[in-house]
Amino acid sequence: MKLEHIGIAVKSIEDKLKIWRDILGLKRHIIQEVPDQKVRIAVLEMGDIHIELIEPTDTHSNVHKFIEKRGEGLHHLCFEVEDIEAILSNMKKNGIKLIDEVPRKGAYAEKIAFIHPKDMGGVLIELCER
Amino acid sequence: MKLEHIGIAVKSIEDKLKIWRDILGLKRHIIQEVPDQKVRIAVLEMGDIHIELIEPTDTHSNVHKFIEKRGEGLHHLCFEVEDIEAILSNMKKNGIKLIDEVPRKGAYAEKIAFIHPKDMGGVLIELCER
Repeated sequence: MKLEHIGIAVKSIEDKLKIWRDILGLKRHIIQEVPDQKVRIAVLEMGDIHIELIEPTDTHSNVHKFIEKRGEGLHHLCFEVEDIEAILSNMKKNGIKLIDEVPRKGAYAEKIAFIHPKDMGGVLIELCER
Repeated sequence: MKLEHIGIAVKSIEDKLKIWRDILGLKRHIIQEVPDQKVRIAVLEMGDIHIELIEPTDTHSNVHKFIEKRGEGLHHLCFEVEDIEAILSNMKKNGIKLIDEVPRKGAYAEKIAFIHPKDMGGVLIELCER
């Protein structure tokens, strides 16, 4: 298992790009829409991992609700795994609350699944398999 | 600049080790006290980076206050840099609010400094130089 990206909830990508690009020096990034999650994301390269700035495009987006409740900030960690079904099955056996019991297609990976923060010490975790 | 670790605020290290060690499979870790920050930490290896579980040992600890206010969860990101003084100086020039204007000695690095989340999009950032 390795860290793939860190998701950060932001009100405005353009606003926060100033910090990550101009102040912290992460030069290369792409911006893309993820309509099914009602967000647009900026993916910034940092060595082997990515920093993902996530901006809600709709008030029904979970990220909008997150920002309303907790403010902008760290939102989730995504780990790349080799056998996502096996891990989800093991988690289910251990009584871990899953958001996605079956993997779905992600914006950049063939299979992704979110684990509910409730049993993960308050951390929203995404698993992805390429 | 590279990610060094991700800090996660927890009420009990032993409790959360079950998730990170037994469910997510991060086998190797050390536990150490950081008296000046009134916390103890479990440092778990994940490839080139670390996951740091931070448990307050005193109600005056900032991490205790964080958990009281926001609950357990993602607390900070630590980036390893080559010239911490130059970055702090550049941030100060850009009007970024710093917690440490001058680096101090950390538990595992010669120099560390925290940047206030206020100007960093709600993300508490630690810089470290070895």
